[in-house]
Amino acid sequence: MTGTEPRLVEVRRNLLKDNDLRARALRQRFRTAGVRVVSVVSSPGAGKTTLLAALLQNLTQQLRVAALVGDLATDNDARRLAASGAPTRQITTGTVCHLEARMIEQALEGWELAELDLLLIENVGNLVCPSAYDLGEDVRLVLAAVTEGEDKPLKYPTIFNTADLAVITKCDLAEAAGCDLDLLRHNIEAVRPGMPVRLVSARSGLGMAELQHAVAA
Amino acid sequence: MTGTEPRLVEVRRNLLKDNDLRARALRQRFRTAGVRVVSVVSSPGAGKTTLLAALLQNLTQQLRVAALVGDLATDNDARRLAASGAPTRQITTGTVCHLEARMIEQALEGWELAELDLLLIENVGNLVCPSAYDLGEDVRLVLAAVTEGEDKPLKYPTIFNTADLAVITKCDLAEAAGCDLDLLRHNIEAVRPGMPVRLVSARSGLGMAELQHAVAA
Repeated sequence: MTGTEPRLVEVRRNLLKDNDLRARALRQRFRTAGVRVVSVVSSPGAGKTTLLAALLQNLTQQLRVAALVGDLATDNDARRLAASGAPTRQITTGTVCHLEARMIEQALEGWELAELDLLLIENVGNLVCPSAYDLGEDVRLVLAAVTEGEDKPLKYPTIFNTADLAVITKCDLAEAAGCDLDLLRHNIEAVRPGMPVRLVSARSGLGMAELQHAVAA
Repeated sequence: MTGTEPRLVEVRRNLLKDNDLRARALRQRFRTAGVRVVSVVSSPGAGKTTLLAALLQNLTQQLRVAALVGDLATDNDARRLAASGAPTRQITTGTVCHLEARMIEQALEGWELAELDLLLIENVGNLVCPSAYDLGEDVRLVLAAVTEGEDKPLKYPTIFNTADLAVITKCDLAEAAGCDLDLLRHNIEAVRPGMPVRLVSARSGLGMAELQHAVAA
């Protein structure tokens, strides 16, 4: 690896700087247009799409909402979210393991932001790489499913550190999965003191009204 | 991004080439020493450590086994696996979202490979990036938990393509999670035709003896 690492670090720095500049410009565009942007990160299968589909069902009644969804392959998620009636676009990243600001720019082409109140962005399922890429969002939600074990915040601290709100999902399975919810909350608090935490189940409806309020606020 | 992308591609190519050369040398070392190497990849929380801890418990009765465990932070997993009595080392990757061959090389320092029959390697929880890095292993297991949804193989095809055996974990929760096991198997078959699939539950013991046999074989 000697010889390639310093260059890699330099290229990575340029790439992140480019992303930060684009994210800053995006954030400015969103503010000017008066659109609130909420992004969601989690490991694969923590329930991002199910949660967003449930939120959209109600949010579309009161707000002009649109959604962007990132995945390596398939447009399954966009089709699931589009069922709500909200304009939805899939960002297919190929082998790229996270969304970047330039992908958001491209996906927004042709949309009149001023006609939106809220934009939801679902990142690629990954607890590592998305943490390094600002997408210009106002609020970043990190999801942790009760089925993943209580130690995920300790093992993936960076993604919890870059988030603004933690959402514990699949709470209807907490008992069956043997999840210690107090320990999970304790571990979130340990890596990101003071971050609000919400317990939800998209299936049972637990906590969904409160989460919807937080997302729309 | 113009201007940085071509360089990034070049550096990434060098990096992967370096990894492939190191992985090839590792594979040769493992063969010469007569040690079988099995690695495990999955999303965070799919049950890699629980599965390996259960396997180690029995494997240590019949084979000389050691384990390497990758995580961004904490040595929780190494401590869990070490309870089996098998020599275990944690590879803490910091912000690196996958294991690389050079990390395996370093972690093996001071171990006499010829004194081992089996080496188990647990990758960082990530369904994307580990797929690009050969670790010199003989067999790669990809885990998919029933709680993650049936569509993961379709959405993360590359990692399923680089694996040799798919293990569906947490089968004791299949009904509670509403998982359609036939659909999950169908989706694995769609992205990696012919790959063997095993259904297990480390908690109930379902399928564990057969999996242990496949890992040790």
